[in-house]
Amino acid sequence: MKPLSDCAAAVVGLGLMGGSLAGALRGRCRAVVGVARRAETVQAALSRELVDLGTTDLAGGVAGADVVVLAAPVGAILRLLREIGPLLPDGCLVMDLGSTKSQIVAEMARLPAPMEPLGGHPMCGREVSGIAAADPALFRHRPFVLTPLPRTSEAALTLGRELVEAVGARPVLLDAARHDRLAAAVSHAPYLLACALTAAASDAAAADPMVWELAASGFRDTSRLAASDVTMMLDILLTNREAALKAVESCGAQLRGLARLLEAEDEEGLRAALENIRHSRTGVNLMPA
Amino acid sequence: MKPLSDCAAAVVGLGLMGGSLAGALRGRCRAVVGVARRAETVQAALSRELVDLGTTDLAGGVAGADVVVLAAPVGAILRLLREIGPLLPDGCLVMDLGSTKSQIVAEMARLPAPMEPLGGHPMCGREVSGIAAADPALFRHRPFVLTPLPRTSEAALTLGRELVEAVGARPVLLDAARHDRLAAAVSHAPYLLACALTAAASDAAAADPMVWELAASGFRDTSRLAASDVTMMLDILLTNREAALKAVESCGAQLRGLARLLEAEDEEGLRAALENIRHSRTGVNLMPA
Repeated sequence: MKPLSDCAAAVVGLGLMGGSLAGALRGRCRAVVGVARRAETVQAALSRELVDLGTTDLAGGVAGADVVVLAAPVGAILRLLREIGPLLPDGCLVMDLGSTKSQIVAEMARLPAPMEPLGGHPMCGREVSGIAAADPALFRHRPFVLTPLPRTSEAALTLGRELVEAVGARPVLLDAARHDRLAAAVSHAPYLLACALTAAASDAAAADPMVWELAASGFRDTSRLAASDVTMMLDILLTNREAALKAVESCGAQLRGLARLLEAEDEEGLRAALENIRHSRTGVNLMPA
Repeated sequence: MKPLSDCAAAVVGLGLMGGSLAGALRGRCRAVVGVARRAETVQAALSRELVDLGTTDLAGGVAGADVVVLAAPVGAILRLLREIGPLLPDGCLVMDLGSTKSQIVAEMARLPAPMEPLGGHPMCGREVSGIAAADPALFRHRPFVLTPLPRTSEAALTLGRELVEAVGARPVLLDAARHDRLAAAVSHAPYLLACALTAAASDAAAADPMVWELAASGFRDTSRLAASDVTMMLDILLTNREAALKAVESCGAQLRGLARLLEAEDEEGLRAALENIRHSRTGVNLMPA
């Protein structure tokens, strides 16, 4: 396969992730073509100089591509994978940015034989969405998971890594099921917890609107993910149902454990549990705010 | 009572909240005296110019005060209230910055008759603590709850409001039980959810350390409160046990409801619930990050 700098890349889907990736790849590839359903999105990508060329025509957009990146909610990626096969140039690298990987990788396995599929997931979600929020710096210093298929060649994986590094991210190789288990713990369960908190506060506010008056930075941050795009999150949850349920159940069990200690006024037990948890949270090197 | 500008204020406890309040009051009162247990804390407050005078001697520190503000974890405030009565000048306003109010207000009711007690709680917690993190701008534009007692005079309440406004905050009058219910929903439940999430991720990381590698901004924000000071949070939970347990149970019930919809693959039901929640979260005017 050609080095990235000689490749034409097509990014299909120009929301937050696709728009950001296109912008980050521009200048690192021979050309970056942006494909979106809506003409206004294509216009926005062109006027923000995130792409070299733009089109609403999927077939035309991917026709000359060496690398095709599907950047859409998981459900849309699955649909695209079912129809895009005949449109792809032989031998092209087919990547995606979907938030769950098992179902996508299974669908990628059905692509026509000459294609080189490689699952991908940059770990840098935001609760905002759309091309207006696109930021070529989005991926910098972030882990970018790659989930190769048994059929993915060494050359294709090398090109995939090159692309990840070109946008400033750090490639992390995982199999799809492991990615999905991990993502459930650090992303899908936090989303559902933020939703549960918001729903409970909303119930409390129905009885006493002063709830929202008193909500400060703690509530704001803990509930932030509840503002995420629902279509995107539904796709994620429905395509990672078992792992997400397991992660949520684990959080629920921990919550019940803490509540039991509090109910029993077991000060020493509660202190030990909370100190352990604090130690985990402060000991871990999370990305800065 | 004198106007605030003629008052000498003593702030007892010079951590994040006390240090910040002292700094915000400096120049708005005749003098601000800082009282802390450790000489190094007093030194730090003096060298950061957060106080006019500093001492480790509680009796000496409050001797000439028109306003005394107790700024410590709830447990320490309760202990201070039990012993400070004989040290206070007659007629002085006694406020606190404690995070729960029912037990503090009950203890304030036992102060000697000439004192003017008034509960207070500025809604601007941070997960950092200590004088090093003190910031006189901490209270600006934030709600500052005041919980008057039946014995609190109009004049004392007026002086309390004046103090709140002098530090840039917005006074919100509530009775103590209502404050505690509201704080459970927007502050104590979020803390326990953040702890449960961190504990569950920590468990998952014991089986697969890659968990922490993949944790991005979503996990960081949802779990942030788990890094809060444990002594402070234990005091809060133990002095607001019933309301905190009720708020946590409400979050748990919401979480189980969302999990049931996901388990049943009820896409439309789940979408409707998540859209409602997203609408609540985005519709509410929370303080900016």
